[in-house]
Amino acid sequence: MLTDRVKQILSWYAGENPGVLSNLARMMNTGTLAGTGKFVILPVDQGFEHGPVRSFGPNPPSYDPDYHFQLAIDAGCNAYAAPLGFLEAGAAKFAGQVPLILKLNNSDTLAKTPNPLSAVTASVDDALRLGCSAVGYTIYPGSGDRNRMYEDLREITREAKAKGIVVVVWSYPRGAISKDGETAVDVAGYAAQIACQLGAHIVKVKPPKDFIEQPEAKKTFEKMNIPTKTMADRVKHVVQSAFNGKRIVIFSGGESKGSAEVLEEIKGIRDGGGFGSIMGRNAFQRPHDEAVKLLKDVMAVYQK
Amino acid sequence: MLTDRVKQILSWYAGENPGVLSNLARMMNTGTLAGTGKFVILPVDQGFEHGPVRSFGPNPPSYDPDYHFQLAIDAGCNAYAAPLGFLEAGAAKFAGQVPLILKLNNSDTLAKTPNPLSAVTASVDDALRLGCSAVGYTIYPGSGDRNRMYEDLREITREAKAKGIVVVVWSYPRGAISKDGETAVDVAGYAAQIACQLGAHIVKVKPPKDFIEQPEAKKTFEKMNIPTKTMADRVKHVVQSAFNGKRIVIFSGGESKGSAEVLEEIKGIRDGGGFGSIMGRNAFQRPHDEAVKLLKDVMAVYQK
Amino acid sequence: MLTDRVKQILSWYAGENPGVLSNLARMMNTGTLAGTGKFVILPVDQGFEHGPVRSFGPNPPSYDPDYHFQLAIDAGCNAYAAPLGFLEAGAAKFAGQVPLILKLNNSDTLAKTPNPLSAVTASVDDALRLGCSAVGYTIYPGSGDRNRMYEDLREITREAKAKGIVVVVWSYPRGAISKDGETAVDVAGYAAQIACQLGAHIVKVKPPKDFIEQPEAKKTFEKMNIPTKTMADRVKHVVQSAFNGKRIVIFSGGESKGSAEVLEEIKGIRDGGGFGSIMGRNAFQRPHDEAVKLLKDVMAVYQK
Amino acid sequence: MLTDRVKQILSWYAGENPGVLSNLARMMNTGTLAGTGKFVILPVDQGFEHGPVRSFGPNPPSYDPDYHFQLAIDAGCNAYAAPLGFLEAGAAKFAGQVPLILKLNNSDTLAKTPNPLSAVTASVDDALRLGCSAVGYTIYPGSGDRNRMYEDLREITREAKAKGIVVVVWSYPRGAISKDGETAVDVAGYAAQIACQLGAHIVKVKPPKDFIEQPEAKKTFEKMNIPTKTMADRVKHVVQSAFNGKRIVIFSGGESKGSAEVLEEIKGIRDGGGFGSIMGRNAFQRPHDEAVKLLKDVMAVYQK
Amino acid sequence: MLTDRVKQILSWYAGENPGVLSNLARMMNTGTLAGTGKFVILPVDQGFEHGPVRSFGPNPPSYDPDYHFQLAIDAGCNAYAAPLGFLEAGAAKFAGQVPLILKLNNSDTLAKTPNPLSAVTASVDDALRLGCSAVGYTIYPGSGDRNRMYEDLREITREAKAKGIVVVVWSYPRGAISKDGETAVDVAGYAAQIACQLGAHIVKVKPPKDFIEQPEAKKTFEKMNIPTKTMADRVKHVVQSAFNGKRIVIFSGGESKGSAEVLEEIKGIRDGGGFGSIMGRNAFQRPHDEAVKLLKDVMAVYQK
Repeated sequence: MLTDRVKQILSWYAGENPGVLSNLARMMNTGTLAGTGKFVILPVDQGFEHGPVRSFGPNPPSYDPDYHFQLAIDAGCNAYAAPLGFLEAGAAKFAGQVPLILKLNNSDTLAKTPNPLSAVTASVDDALRLGCSAVGYTIYPGSGDRNRMYEDLREITREAKAKGIVVVVWSYPRGAISKDGETAVDVAGYAAQIACQLGAHIVKVKPPKDFIEQPEAKKTFEKMNIPTKTMADRVKHVVQSAFNGKRIVIFSGGESKGSAEVLEEIKGIRDGGGFGSIMGRNAFQRPHDEAVKLLKDVMAVYQK
Repeated sequence: MLTDRVKQILSWYAGENPGVLSNLARMMNTGTLAGTGKFVILPVDQGFEHGPVRSFGPNPPSYDPDYHFQLAIDAGCNAYAAPLGFLEAGAAKFAGQVPLILKLNNSDTLAKTPNPLSAVTASVDDALRLGCSAVGYTIYPGSGDRNRMYEDLREITREAKAKGIVVVVWSYPRGAISKDGETAVDVAGYAAQIACQLGAHIVKVKPPKDFIEQPEAKKTFEKMNIPTKTMADRVKHVVQSAFNGKRIVIFSGGESKGSAEVLEEIKGIRDGGGFGSIMGRNAFQRPHDEAVKLLKDVMAVYQK
Repeated sequence: MLTDRVKQILSWYAGENPGVLSNLARMMNTGTLAGTGKFVILPVDQGFEHGPVRSFGPNPPSYDPDYHFQLAIDAGCNAYAAPLGFLEAGAAKFAGQVPLILKLNNSDTLAKTPNPLSAVTASVDDALRLGCSAVGYTIYPGSGDRNRMYEDLREITREAKAKGIVVVVWSYPRGAISKDGETAVDVAGYAAQIACQLGAHIVKVKPPKDFIEQPEAKKTFEKMNIPTKTMADRVKHVVQSAFNGKRIVIFSGGESKGSAEVLEEIKGIRDGGGFGSIMGRNAFQRPHDEAVKLLKDVMAVYQK
Repeated sequence: MLTDRVKQILSWYAGENPGVLSNLARMMNTGTLAGTGKFVILPVDQGFEHGPVRSFGPNPPSYDPDYHFQLAIDAGCNAYAAPLGFLEAGAAKFAGQVPLILKLNNSDTLAKTPNPLSAVTASVDDALRLGCSAVGYTIYPGSGDRNRMYEDLREITREAKAKGIVVVVWSYPRGAISKDGETAVDVAGYAAQIACQLGAHIVKVKPPKDFIEQPEAKKTFEKMNIPTKTMADRVKHVVQSAFNGKRIVIFSGGESKGSAEVLEEIKGIRDGGGFGSIMGRNAFQRPHDEAVKLLKDVMAVYQK
Repeated sequence: MLTDRVKQILSWYAGENPGVLSNLARMMNTGTLAGTGKFVILPVDQGFEHGPVRSFGPNPPSYDPDYHFQLAIDAGCNAYAAPLGFLEAGAAKFAGQVPLILKLNNSDTLAKTPNPLSAVTASVDDALRLGCSAVGYTIYPGSGDRNRMYEDLREITREAKAKGIVVVVWSYPRGAISKDGETAVDVAGYAAQIACQLGAHIVKVKPPKDFIEQPEAKKTFEKMNIPTKTMADRVKHVVQSAFNGKRIVIFSGGESKGSAEVLEEIKGIRDGGGFGSIMGRNAFQRPHDEAVKLLKDVMAVYQK
């Protein structure tokens, strides 16, 4: 049975086929937050993106692919997201226990390239054979190769939607933007908007900071007195930018930090109307029980 | 989390991809019987097979496709099976609420053909876009066109398995068999065996009667003193014939009858080691609440 | 390392690609008869062909698909042959332990048809995904639909050879032939010849009886004084008919019978130059240890 | 029969089809190290990569393609890896005698290019027709064209896995990395991680040196007191980085050197938990008997 | 009947299908050198590569496509090689009179490109319809687009081999190599090796000069005292580099020169173990009878 809130969220995706709706519903009906329309997702692509020792060294059991499946299950997450290899290594053993999101593109940090461009390392058909509910794809709005990313995503989105698979887009502005600007509130809203316009079902952005990058945007913020002081203020802007809240937008946890700090940020996201968090390093770099406790504390915030 | 029994059942399907295992797990983790490895499935293909008035006339609300989704949900069934049209009519509205089985072939009874042969009326890709966990396919072993059915099924099975979709085979002997023989215990066992050898994940047969059709089979029953007197005896033979119980074999409810009679039959199926029931007319031709009560009573038998 | 005899046999298949040669070598380098160029293969398609109770009732553990993999391994067979379902059920668990032959077509005996025609129930690609070394296919020379069988086989053979898979043909004359004629020595030779001409790498026929079916053939037998009295005489004729012994021809064990009788027949096959036996019912219908003993006794005959 | 260790290793690849599992089992059940789960593989792609005289000049019989098949067999290697031409030249003659790995991409050193990019010179279908158990593919993480390599590999991996063929990835960091960094311990771990995340079944890296390339990685090594002083320490890190040892990771032998030096290095690899070695120049550039002796000495180290 | 030498050469191609073997045998059983395993081939692609007047102006009858068929026949060549147009113009008239090699790629010299890359101007199917025994393909190892050439060749090779057509590769190093280096002995050996590893049946290189291009190669030449002084010395190295002489390697005649000079060079090729010559300009730019005489003199050298 679905709650009224879940039904309401699904209503914003009318027009998608029932396969997509089923997989959206599946993620919203799994784990501790089942039925609330809120999300806490465990993403573990850092082994590829940052290298294994930086990612898993702080908590060595996390080198093991089984570890993350089990952590997502133990903590009651809505879904677990990872690249092909990590999912292949555990998808049979943990079949049917937690919805899976296959990260389709990945970028390593051995190479230092001016134009960041992820390789497409898996396919929608891989998602089907591994029993995934969704595919994930990263775009870098603002970067030199963004158009190629958008166009690759277009093909993936078209295929995923035809086959009943949900599309989650990581939207990370980069490139022709100042370092601060990458998490500026206007840029975060813009990043969310682009992902939604590209057809994403779920969008992931970074928690926005109290900074405005684009002068033209600044004018409107000022003219309309749009507040950006608190996290809640800023999240509210991003959620609005995601089709007035009619697309699910969730926020990354960023670099590892203290539990109190994490929970404070989550409260801001919740108060701003954010749909949830996708929290990797702050989860799997802690010892297992501590991570489960933190994730459950985060879920408790969203449940209020 | 999966129970040990569900994990044991999944272990018999090692070699299938995680997509198939996930969908098997999904059906075994849904509804009242979640975790028991037992199944009660609601199938509603009679509108196509027997015509609407014979099928839905006795309980007019059942003309409505929504009715059956809701009945399966209310009763806590593991899955709901129907042809393309019925699933299309409700799959969006009930997305994510109950696993779906798309019946891929159907035969109407307007035409009277000596050789029964169902038309293939939907595809594996339809199953994906409708968010189904499984496809269903009927074979008529013993009939003149059986080989064409087996060969069509081969293609469906290959595609479904590659895309992570479970294959359910309805195995109904017919044709070069006496009327009694269609439900003879040896024939039921043979029907189950054929479906399993064709690669079915789940097999549906009719509850076998205390009758032996084939003289050569009769010799072995007699020589080996294989009992066939009780339903439990006979179901045991059929389960054995389904790869010694390593393939899920479930039993149809047959024509409508009294609740007591239904439950008596179910006890026999349970005692013989059957994995469950697929019960159509005995469910949807009763008024809603009565049907829910009967289905719950059936589930209670399997839970013991 | 390959023995000189195995190298000699492989030399007759020069022109096939190394994939085919590797799989032929694999079967000749497995089990008790490794290196001798002789074969004892366990085939278990009777569940489909004769029904489960006739096939497995006499030895109930044999209902279990694992049983046959284990029996083939325990007895040191060169290969195990079965339809799709039986192989799917155990191929992952027993991966790499015994070469597998996927029987691609099968015929059930629920239907009584004047023109026997097996359904094609699996594909060469199934053989690849299940890790098989060979595919098996049955033809019924003499039957009404033989040409369709030959033509289906043509496509299978073409694909199998391109993909490095060995082709084993069961050649069972039937139809426009007297009952005795089905195992007549001239007919057995003819059946072997047809299979070889169709491109089979390995041919299976029934042990020939001292009877000649075709009057035209009889004239030559008489004129040339070709002896047919002993099993060795007759097997010699069949082996000659299989390209003068340059195609591997093996003999079925037929209906279950006493061990002494089986071994007597095997001696005749060996003395006539037969390459080995494919022995189903005489193996799996005995209790496990008795079956292993019989198979090992059979292998001992071939080793002399 | 498979040993418990081989079964354990295969269990990490659950979800792959039985074809892949069979070929993995085949390599682990071949040669001197059969059953140990350890590997010594002979790779000979240097003729293409470094040119014939540098590769084969030091031991002229090694110009002959037969030489390497025979060396792998004589020494009891688990497998022999080479480009298309070398395998075509001997695959028929040595069919079934040693598992083959077809190197699918190769790069010559006649051209000096800033961005190393290998040509894809053979296909998965070539592997089938040549009777290979695996395909091999080289990636250069850190190089300018790495994304194209990852994407080409994705297609090869998808096809190979569907057809039951094992995927071996040579992972050689290059490009935006210092010369020392190419074999730095953090970089080696990262290279292994990337190959595993791309879906490799077996990964080959260079033996890591006591050097850390990336400042961010260095922080974790220091903070977590991860030792890197001995080869065993460093191999342990690389094995951990290969999914906590749940993917087979083997180490190249590097440039030719003295036997004592080779064996010392092997001991370190063994003590660190490495799965084995892939040793080309140190084998085939020695005279045949010396090479066999060295390979057998290496295997003896792994057997302890 | 085939001579022992021809049989020996064919034995190195075991694993290729009989179609390929037949076409190889056909070329080795044609003309003056039939049965010797030596080759003299007439190639006429200069019209496309250098333009007609440079090519045919010195001997105007050679503008006519018939001229070259007739020349090859009159001189007793093993085969005649040309681009699509030349073969189409005469293949019907001269059908069955001389084996044909269809040059599949060609590069004109109207355009001056830094990276030489030939266009693929015909297909394997063209070779079949024209009755050709072989296709020819040029690669430029060392050039910027070499990888694309190798990958195009991979597809051509796969198709040609499946269809029974011999593959002849012209291997001409170019690009990141000094002018002298293009015919250096190490480079010639490397060029031969690359072509063989790419699956060529017959390789054509330029006669090597007494020069070593690559410093790493030079070390081995010096250390192993590999002589390079005479043409025979150098050809011996190239033949060794072509799989120890197990691939047919033939040498081009290069620019036009005096007959004595030509014959001197041929003696060196013969003494070094070369399989023959492919001689264009030195043949067709001479008057017909003179050309026939020279070609016959060349064949006489190879016959000794």
